[in-house]
Amino acid sequence: MKLIKSVGSMRLWSNQTRARGKTIAFVPTMGFLHEGHLSLVRRARREASAVVMSIFVNPLQFGPREDFVAYPRDIQRDSALAGAEGCDVLFFPAKKQMYPEGFLTRVGVERMDGVLCGAFRPGHFVGVCTVVLKLANIVRPHVLLVGQKDAQQAVILGRMLRDLNTEVRLIVCPTVRERDGLAMSSRNSYLSPKERERALAISRSLFLARKLVLCGERKAARILGQMKSALSRGGISDIDYVAILDAKELVPVKTVRGEVLIAVAARVGTTRLIDNIKLRI
Amino acid sequence: MKLIKSVGSMRLWSNQTRARGKTIAFVPTMGFLHEGHLSLVRRARREASAVVMSIFVNPLQFGPREDFVAYPRDIQRDSALAGAEGCDVLFFPAKKQMYPEGFLTRVGVERMDGVLCGAFRPGHFVGVCTVVLKLANIVRPHVLLVGQKDAQQAVILGRMLRDLNTEVRLIVCPTVRERDGLAMSSRNSYLSPKERERALAISRSLFLARKLVLCGERKAARILGQMKSALSRGGISDIDYVAILDAKELVPVKTVRGEVLIAVAARVGTTRLIDNIKLRI
Repeated sequence: MKLIKSVGSMRLWSNQTRARGKTIAFVPTMGFLHEGHLSLVRRARREASAVVMSIFVNPLQFGPREDFVAYPRDIQRDSALAGAEGCDVLFFPAKKQMYPEGFLTRVGVERMDGVLCGAFRPGHFVGVCTVVLKLANIVRPHVLLVGQKDAQQAVILGRMLRDLNTEVRLIVCPTVRERDGLAMSSRNSYLSPKERERALAISRSLFLARKLVLCGERKAARILGQMKSALSRGGISDIDYVAILDAKELVPVKTVRGEVLIAVAARVGTTRLIDNIKLRI
Repeated sequence: MKLIKSVGSMRLWSNQTRARGKTIAFVPTMGFLHEGHLSLVRRARREASAVVMSIFVNPLQFGPREDFVAYPRDIQRDSALAGAEGCDVLFFPAKKQMYPEGFLTRVGVERMDGVLCGAFRPGHFVGVCTVVLKLANIVRPHVLLVGQKDAQQAVILGRMLRDLNTEVRLIVCPTVRERDGLAMSSRNSYLSPKERERALAISRSLFLARKLVLCGERKAARILGQMKSALSRGGISDIDYVAILDAKELVPVKTVRGEVLIAVAARVGTTRLIDNIKLRI
């Protein structure tokens, strides 16, 4: 696996790879890889002839009181994991490569970037859109892969890539979970053993919601009520949101119909966790 | 000259043209072509093997009380003019092609899009950046040409194209003027003969500023004072701004040094006109 650190070298590699008639699949990450990221790489290998993963902890998507500095980093381990999964290139740019002095441009998706996590993390999705568009312009992939775990991010990026007439195809891969149901996340590393136990209430509340819908419940208010009770019973009280939304438009629904997203964001100790499930009725 | 109306056909033409090893120069316009636009096409022909012009009166860059509906349009005449100058493609998309239902993405350049015209036309440059990035992603040019007449637009687009790691090279071509000095603009068609006469005070104030600088004046305040007097003498009192700025950063300067932009925006009757000169000391 090739390690590339400069924007110029990355662009050169992509142009040469395309010129040889190869297709490129791209997995953007913030590193500290887990099975979720690696599942994206495996899917990427099936979608294109070459796979690029980027690792860049993007300062633009962190708020001033968020965990940019604390965010876990381990490039040696990540590099070994990405290589073992068959990544062709690991793109690992420094901050100055991505945001040289004088950088001022911002990309956002109106309305969608102000709801759910966007309401609690102002500027977060503008940071995500801006960096992903930059990365896509540097790597020039045919396919870009992200995880369903970050459901709002996936919808927003899909909207942005389409709205801006990029030729990049977005593939959203299923959330990968621990055996007990906890959605994999680099931020799980922040949890103490007791918090790790409490965190399970989040996925449990989602599985409960799925069960209720499968048993015929269609009223969002009732499902949300039961989810909140389940979270509370599990010791989770610091909830940012529990929501049932139209999966494409990210607008809350009163009745479960069509494709819906059921999403939770809550704090376990000081760690903010998110999780979701998508259902089609 | 080929007339293309759909995004899909435009993209296909560009991909095929690139695949044949040709380079593409792109001139985005809002139509109602004048000599300024045509000078861009002539320069475009020297820069690349194929030239695409777009004509799209972009609703996203007009404010609710601005002249989107009144903006002059004459696609027959424009088509003849573009063809005669050797354009290979005229891209003329309908509004629904560019902004299909559900369109939500916005691109902006912070700070720079809120000063000068941006302070008087909120959202204008976000509209410009968004449409130009879309057009660039559809046409996929090697070179993009704009006029110095829209100085702020040129600086902002340059910043955006660089910040987002596009491979598009921006060329800014000199303002083309009528014999008496008036900067060519599609909006000049709004002027009555008397207003047309008064409008001359704008370019005259800029030429006066240039003369003052060439004669050794370096204090921006003094130059601006004389410009305002000249505008007032010429019957122009409805001034949005008269400014002397660092030409790259668009920040006002107190002392003329390096490369400066001297810019005016004023209303003649109900017509808002802009003009500028760039000087290097």
